[in-house]
Amino acid sequence: MNKLSNIEKDFAQWYQDVIYAAELVDETSVRGCYVIRPYAWKMWELIQAYLDARIKETGHQNAAFPLLIPESFIKREAEHVEGFSPELAVVTMAGGKKLEEPLVIRPTSETTIHHSFSRWIKSWRDLPLKINQWANVVRWEMRSRPFLRTTEFFWQEGHTAHETKQEAETEVQLMLNEYVSFIQGQLAIPVIIGQKTEVEKFAGAEKTYAVEAIMPDGKSLQMCTSHLLSQNFAKAFNITFQDRGKTQSYPYLTSWGITTRVIGATIMVHGDQKGLIIPPAIAPIQVVVVPIYKNDDEKDAVQAHYDFIKTALADFRISFDEDMSKTPGAKFYHWELRGVPIRLEIGKRDADKEQVVLVNRLTGEKNIVPFDKLSTTVKMLLEKLQKDLYQRAHEKMDKLVFVGEKLSEFGPKMADEAGAYITGWCGDPACEQELKKYKAFTRCLLETHKLSQCMCCGKSSKRDVLVAKSY
Amino acid sequence: MNKLSNIEKDFAQWYQDVIYAAELVDETSVRGCYVIRPYAWKMWELIQAYLDARIKETGHQNAAFPLLIPESFIKREAEHVEGFSPELAVVTMAGGKKLEEPLVIRPTSETTIHHSFSRWIKSWRDLPLKINQWANVVRWEMRSRPFLRTTEFFWQEGHTAHETKQEAETEVQLMLNEYVSFIQGQLAIPVIIGQKTEVEKFAGAEKTYAVEAIMPDGKSLQMCTSHLLSQNFAKAFNITFQDRGKTQSYPYLTSWGITTRVIGATIMVHGDQKGLIIPPAIAPIQVVVVPIYKNDDEKDAVQAHYDFIKTALADFRISFDEDMSKTPGAKFYHWELRGVPIRLEIGKRDADKEQVVLVNRLTGEKNIVPFDKLSTTVKMLLEKLQKDLYQRAHEKMDKLVFVGEKLSEFGPKMADEAGAYITGWCGDPACEQELKKYKAFTRCLLETHKLSQCMCCGKSSKRDVLVAKSY
Repeated sequence: MNKLSNIEKDFAQWYQDVIYAAELVDETSVRGCYVIRPYAWKMWELIQAYLDARIKETGHQNAAFPLLIPESFIKREAEHVEGFSPELAVVTMAGGKKLEEPLVIRPTSETTIHHSFSRWIKSWRDLPLKINQWANVVRWEMRSRPFLRTTEFFWQEGHTAHETKQEAETEVQLMLNEYVSFIQGQLAIPVIIGQKTEVEKFAGAEKTYAVEAIMPDGKSLQMCTSHLLSQNFAKAFNITFQDRGKTQSYPYLTSWGITTRVIGATIMVHGDQKGLIIPPAIAPIQVVVVPIYKNDDEKDAVQAHYDFIKTALADFRISFDEDMSKTPGAKFYHWELRGVPIRLEIGKRDADKEQVVLVNRLTGEKNIVPFDKLSTTVKMLLEKLQKDLYQRAHEKMDKLVFVGEKLSEFGPKMADEAGAYITGWCGDPACEQELKKYKAFTRCLLETHKLSQCMCCGKSSKRDVLVAKSY
Repeated sequence: MNKLSNIEKDFAQWYQDVIYAAELVDETSVRGCYVIRPYAWKMWELIQAYLDARIKETGHQNAAFPLLIPESFIKREAEHVEGFSPELAVVTMAGGKKLEEPLVIRPTSETTIHHSFSRWIKSWRDLPLKINQWANVVRWEMRSRPFLRTTEFFWQEGHTAHETKQEAETEVQLMLNEYVSFIQGQLAIPVIIGQKTEVEKFAGAEKTYAVEAIMPDGKSLQMCTSHLLSQNFAKAFNITFQDRGKTQSYPYLTSWGITTRVIGATIMVHGDQKGLIIPPAIAPIQVVVVPIYKNDDEKDAVQAHYDFIKTALADFRISFDEDMSKTPGAKFYHWELRGVPIRLEIGKRDADKEQVVLVNRLTGEKNIVPFDKLSTTVKMLLEKLQKDLYQRAHEKMDKLVFVGEKLSEFGPKMADEAGAYITGWCGDPACEQELKKYKAFTRCLLETHKLSQCMCCGKSSKRDVLVAKSY
């Protein structure tokens, strides 16, 4: 049996332990690349199914653009090339020959998609153009951690073009709100939303909005981003359209994405000493049935009710653990480690009484439930678990977010102890730079204006800012 | 309006014309790579949804393995490296530095997945191991044609490991049969099934089974393959398990895959001079509603029934064409080109009589259908269309497959005219090689034994073989 490191004392090691013990990932022979094993991939499939439906319902269409991008494309937008150059994986040989122009593996697809946009957009009638793709991307990472920072990762990337800046802004907010409702509703993770600073924004964007979540170690994790690209890329890729006034204009572009790293966030936010606790909305198995019997007679008595259980729980993702080589106790341990929300135990005596025992993974509470109430009880319990996980995560987050006035005072605490800080900032990158002394960064500019002075220079603060160590 | 080349006189050019005119693909700046545009990607999503469900129902689990593979992995299996080396795209630079060991972009994932298998398989209890992934792969192609042969393409690749050769054979046949039922049932394409010869089999396999479809130009297109890898890769990647007799053994492996090229096959098999005809099962739009009105009063009268139509056709993929800049005639043309199975016309007089006109894309037949029969009529018509397309394709295929005794006689016909041939073969690769004189290849060995002599040397034939030009 796998023993997980103490979650309170060594959170980072607990994370490493649990992702391997629960068979979510495996190492490979390529630096920073991991196998995403079936149990974790199923979570991603459930995430994809939810988001894909929302992306389509909000008027976007899926397509597929090439993995490989001419090196010259990446260089067309000055900030973009500066931001991504150090992370590129480059194909220089193909078909047994040296390529005339090297090809980079997409680190993100703005450049190749905007090249296509320049071919498709001629008139205002072609706008808005709202495209999404589910894809793998590669960014060469010096230090990797499964899900959180990997050389290859999976994501969706939305790319849209609009007639006016106002419309593009609306799109950026629309998808930001979709992400927030997904993260809070499906992943049960509370978030902090705001705009990235000039230093932290996406390379080539006018504005980047981000959704941040505070992990139990007080570090902030960027869950996703939504960018107003404005006309920079349109100019770099010569995307023009005849507008309603018959003038050639540049469209306003946006892009937005969310990655497999949210699986890492979900593991960190909800897990406990026993292992994962997966929110029911993305749990590959929502109810695991563990039969308990000592002999063939008892076994027959229990199994006689399997059809009933399958029918009663047909709306849920259920699994029967019939592994004869394991004791019930070993099975409890196995499924607790894997974070299945509800365990359903049924023994001979339960079978005779037409009842089962439901065990809540979050609280460990046991409930005896008669057969005729099984379906409704499971439904209620899964809904309750989803809400309780969010509530618990919110309480944890509240204890990790502080208000700090002076960086010189809260900086050392932030460096040594768990915690993120809301503080004031004058807007000067030099003051932002001071955070690095404490291994921290600005995470996002908030809509609030509670603090009047800059954390660093003491001058007037423009708006509140979230600062923290980060993943 | 786009005019398609004559489908009878220049089939190859018709194909090129229709895939661009119907906005299925677009060119990119990377050799052999294409954008798969939303309308075609939706077909792939429908194909994925069907196959993914079947793959899961037959006991496989999805996972994700790395895009990049160490060059040394590819070299471990002698035949495999020989087969794939000329097609590899190689990453030599990453993160601004030259890599110590080059990484190839997966042309297929046997090597990296078998490396993982060697970590996961310890005992017979770990078998069978049945994994699938949906992925993009890259094979450097000198000559590309959208969908049919592209540098990057999309597919699913299944990889399994079994205790016995018998079990592995069963798996290979199971998935071959799944493919056949998918291709015939969903794509409405009749097929010929058989085993590849030693020369044509997958690099590293013991046996390759293929599903071939005959295109209207008489060329044979390999729709998918299912390989018995046996123990070659297991030995190369040192996958061993303790068997039931407590001896260390090598498992028997299989792999099987189907790619986006089946979209190309569907276009070729069913299309006509007006454009695509998409089988209802994979049609992004099954029914397109074209309203017909001359003024606002008529428009209101027609649109008053939209809610009814939406409700009546809620089980189908429908779309309303409300483009005010186009005449009904232009819309008919537009949707015929895109191969939507049923056009639903509704004008003021129809609205008043509570009826619509349904037009069959395959036959052009028009039917007046009263509102109360709309739902059932559409259901029946889609089912009929699906069957009729298969029937028509089968008739076309029957006219393109001939029996030939002597290569010297049928070879010239095969080189100049459309057609595939069933003939005899002694099994000698030298006789197989003779086919190249006529630009043809063996496609698959059949179960039949109608011809007693080899097409080439006249010696005794072992079994019938399908020979044809190929895509």
